[in-house]
Amino acid sequence: MPQLRKDPITNRWVIVKIENPQKDWQVTHAEVHSSRTCPFCPGNEGMTPKEIAVYGKRRGGEWGVRVVPNKFPAVRIEETTRRTANGIYDRVGGFGAHEVIIESPEHSADMADFSIEQLELVLRVYRDRCLDLQKDVRLKYILIFKNFGEQAGASLHHPHSQLIGLPIVPSRVLSEVKGAEKHFEYTERCIFCDILEQEEQKLIFLDSGSHVALTPFASRFPFEMWILPKKHQTHFEASSDEDLASLAIALKGALSRLKKALNNPSYNLMIHTSPINDNTSDMFHWHIEIIPKLTEVAGFELGTGFYVNLTPPETAAEILRNQKD
Amino acid sequence: MPQLRKDPITNRWVIVKIENPQKDWQVTHAEVHSSRTCPFCPGNEGMTPKEIAVYGKRRGGEWGVRVVPNKFPAVRIEETTRRTANGIYDRVGGFGAHEVIIESPEHSADMADFSIEQLELVLRVYRDRCLDLQKDVRLKYILIFKNFGEQAGASLHHPHSQLIGLPIVPSRVLSEVKGAEKHFEYTERCIFCDILEQEEQKLIFLDSGSHVALTPFASRFPFEMWILPKKHQTHFEASSDEDLASLAIALKGALSRLKKALNNPSYNLMIHTSPINDNTSDMFHWHIEIIPKLTEVAGFELGTGFYVNLTPPETAAEILRNQKD
Repeated sequence: MPQLRKDPITNRWVIVKIENPQKDWQVTHAEVHSSRTCPFCPGNEGMTPKEIAVYGKRRGGEWGVRVVPNKFPAVRIEETTRRTANGIYDRVGGFGAHEVIIESPEHSADMADFSIEQLELVLRVYRDRCLDLQKDVRLKYILIFKNFGEQAGASLHHPHSQLIGLPIVPSRVLSEVKGAEKHFEYTERCIFCDILEQEEQKLIFLDSGSHVALTPFASRFPFEMWILPKKHQTHFEASSDEDLASLAIALKGALSRLKKALNNPSYNLMIHTSPINDNTSDMFHWHIEIIPKLTEVAGFELGTGFYVNLTPPETAAEILRNQKD
Repeated sequence: MPQLRKDPITNRWVIVKIENPQKDWQVTHAEVHSSRTCPFCPGNEGMTPKEIAVYGKRRGGEWGVRVVPNKFPAVRIEETTRRTANGIYDRVGGFGAHEVIIESPEHSADMADFSIEQLELVLRVYRDRCLDLQKDVRLKYILIFKNFGEQAGASLHHPHSQLIGLPIVPSRVLSEVKGAEKHFEYTERCIFCDILEQEEQKLIFLDSGSHVALTPFASRFPFEMWILPKKHQTHFEASSDEDLASLAIALKGALSRLKKALNNPSYNLMIHTSPINDNTSDMFHWHIEIIPKLTEVAGFELGTGFYVNLTPPETAAEILRNQKD
């Protein structure tokens, strides 16, 4: 049973595995599967828990995208949300949702090379899973993320993303939402809209009509990328099918440029959207963050939350802009 | 010239290298040097910038610990602290101090195996460098940290630590200091002292007299360790020679147990101390944090600031307690 524990000093939350804790730690490598032994490949559907949803179904039982519960969930929908104290410590039961989105039936496909249609389908699945899960009022936040490549923490090669629904709004999300609120109180404008206004030239490297991709001014990591809708929108899941068509073009453009510029690096992709079931704030502007895994986070970053970045975003934007499609 | 940039949304700071930015990123490995080519080995003193301090000098020019400016500094004492705005963005000149503490003349020595005398000497150097640098009133924070092993970001094998002095109190430090203040306002007690009081049995795995080593209740990482003085102390650099003798025993005990329990893992070590030149707060309790590098920080952690830990700290404490000295 997982348990959520709060650090009493910083209010940072940690999901701790209590049953069968891991005692031995060796450097592990991603499991290499052929399509015969891969649990995400067509024909092996029995190797995953029963599916939650299937998209793009064709004759002969073929599917385009498949959503299944995570076999090793960090949180579980059957757990309690009860909060208990032990002296100065706070604990919450490990309640939540943890799903895997299998993005393609093809074992060796890569999101950067997906057809626009396939990428649109994946984005519609992301949206629809958010819309479905937000009916559970116990959930406060839904994070969709993708770990690509071993250096970024992927343990399986078959293209997939993950969704985690949490009973708590995470601190990093709160700090972004509060930062946006502070700016709004002062200026009565959205800070992300202000960034787009100011960055027309220098840091934006791609425009797909309704979305842009840019390298942020205070990039923590070399070649950090954000994809934002041009018009103000608080929740990713409010995207229409037309919005997602433009987003697919921006996402494919950003990922394929990154792949070419840096010889297919590992990366983490996260959708930063507003907390769900919260209609009190409309100052946040959802966006995708993509963090290539090129360096190790070391003692200085861990100790301070300060980052050192050896590639200024204006240099990264220029390199990404100059990649051929 | 480095530049400090503030993210306008979260107020997170980033040090950005502007001159000669790195454009190409390949997976890099630590430089392997023999003692003949290692810039930190005795006899090669000319390969580093001129030394700032030398400790433990013996006949024949031998030294015990040597402090030199970092050859590739993240910040520089010659830079400006001037703050400028560009629209919604904030910039500060890359002012600060960045030093390397060469912990031993022996190329292949390992802090976990240092003699207690050598470790005491290193800790005295840490303290004395803090005391010297805090005379510069432009500095607001001094972080001492050590990256051990390639997975933890070390680029040279010769045992060394680093010191960075910053013109800004970093956000992660502020969040700890503010958390401690909040607890004090409510209870009129130090939260770290409260933790020590509550944890006598379960999470403390080592007691050296004036210091203890424990695995924190909300450990973000498997086998995360903290070393704390038992009596309340705000600043590491206020440690007496007797304090440092006890700290050396605790530090050696923690590092050597970690080395045995997990087969010599990479780790990051950071001293979390109070901001300098700030006498307004005495609620913070300095401590050392040691983070073994066993997993990759992936999309979920990056997106939320929430961590998933597969080894509960009570399990880690038991394993560490049972290691023979």
